[in-house]
Amino acid sequence: MSGLIRLRGFIQAMTRLADAEADERRWLTEGAELLQGLIAQDDWLPEAMAEAGPTYRQYLLHCDPAERFCVVSFVWGPGQRTPIHNHTVWGLVGMLRGEEVSTEMQPNPAGGPMLPGRVDRLRPGEVVPVSADTYDIHVVENAFADRTSISIHCYGGNIGAVARSVFDPATGEQRRFISGYHNTALPNLWDRSRELAA
Amino acid sequence: MSGLIRLRGFIQAMTRLADAEADERRWLTEGAELLQGLIAQDDWLPEAMAEAGPTYRQYLLHCDPAERFCVVSFVWGPGQRTPIHNHTVWGLVGMLRGEEVSTEMQPNPAGGPMLPGRVDRLRPGEVVPVSADTYDIHVVENAFADRTSISIHCYGGNIGAVARSVFDPATGEQRRFISGYHNTALPNLWDRSRELAA
Ligand SMILES: [Fe+3]
Ligand SMILES: [Fe+3]
Ligand SMILES: [Mg+2]
Repeated sequence: MSGLIRLRGFIQAMTRLADAEADERRWLTEGAELLQGLIAQDDWLPEAMAEAGPTYRQYLLHCDPAERFCVVSFVWGPGQRTPIHNHTVWGLVGMLRGEEVSTEMQPNPAGGPMLPGRVDRLRPGEVVPVSADTYDIHVVENAFADRTSISIHCYGGNIGAVARSVFDPATGEQRRFISGYHNTALPNLWDRSRELAA
Repeated sequence: MSGLIRLRGFIQAMTRLADAEADERRWLTEGAELLQGLIAQDDWLPEAMAEAGPTYRQYLLHCDPAERFCVVSFVWGPGQRTPIHNHTVWGLVGMLRGEEVSTEMQPNPAGGPMLPGRVDRLRPGEVVPVSADTYDIHVVENAFADRTSISIHCYGGNIGAVARSVFDPATGEQRRFISGYHNTALPNLWDRSRELAA
C-alpha cells in the first residue's frame, strides 16, 4: 500500500503543476524533478503494470481528467523495441528498472532511409525529456536481450489518444498512429482507510 | 466502450464544476443534473463495479486527484443495508438499477434509541442530495429482498478516506468510521484509440 502513496503523491504534485498552467519549460524541469523523485525507488509499481507481453506494453497509471498530462508504465520484454514514432507533445522518460536505448531518427532530406541522431542510454533513476520542438522522433528499445526493462513516462496530454505517427525507416513514410493502452483497469490510489486507521 | 465514454464525460463535467470552485448549492443542483444525465441510461457501469458481495459493496469509479469529489458505485445484494452512518460532506445519490430506501436517523435528545426521520424510496433515474447541514445521518437498504440494487454516489471529498461515524441505533453512540473501497482497480476511461480510429 505504501507504494500507492508514493504514486498518489506524485500525481497530486503533477496535478498542481497543471493547475498552475505550467508551460513546457516548467514541465521539463519541475516535472522532471518530480519524476526523478518517483523513480528514485523501485518498490511502488503495481505488479499488473510491470508485466511484459508479446510486444512492449504501455499501461496507463493515471490520466488527468482534463487530459493535460498522463503517466504511463512502459514495459520492454527482452529485446523488444518500438516502431519509429513521434509524440507531438512534451514527454518525460524516467528509467525505473533495467535499461533502455532511445535513438533519435530524422527524415532524410534527400529522401530514402531515415537518419539516426542522438543516442541516449538510460539507467535506473535517470530522466530524459522529449519535446515536439527539438527531439520528437525516435525508436526505443530494451538495452537487454535477456531481461525486462521498465520506464515511467509522462506526456503533455493523454498520449494513448493523441493522433501521431509511426515512420517507415527505409522511406520515412508516415502512418497515422493512436497507441491506446494495454490495460483496462487502473490502480486505485485512493483507498486510504489503512493509512488513516486509528 | 461507449459506456466508458458516458462515464468519462460525466467525470470531466464534474471536474469543471470543481475547477469553477462550485459551492455546495451548485454541486447539489448542477452536479445533481449531471448525475441524473449519467444514470438516465443503465448500460455503462463496468461489470466488475456491479457485483454484489457478502455485504454491500462500494466500488470507487473515480476520485478527483485533489480529492474535491469522488464517484462511487454502491451495490446492495438482496436485503443488504448499511450501518447508521454520517458523511460530513455533501453527497448525491442516483439510483441506477433496482430501488433503495434511505431513512434519516436523528440522535435522541433524551438519550436512548435514535429517532427515524425522513424516508426516501429511490427509483431508477432519481437523484437525492445529502448535506452535512440538513440530512447527514441515515441508514440505506436495498428495497428488495430478492435482487441486487445499484446506486451511483458522488461526494464532496474522497469519501472512502473521510473520517466519519457509524452510530449504535440503541444508544446513539458514535464510532470512528473510514469506509475505504472494495476495489483495488479502477476502470480505464482514457483509451480512446477505438473511438479515434480512422
Ligand atoms: Fe517515445
Ligand atoms: Fe450514506
Ligand atoms: Mg422518491
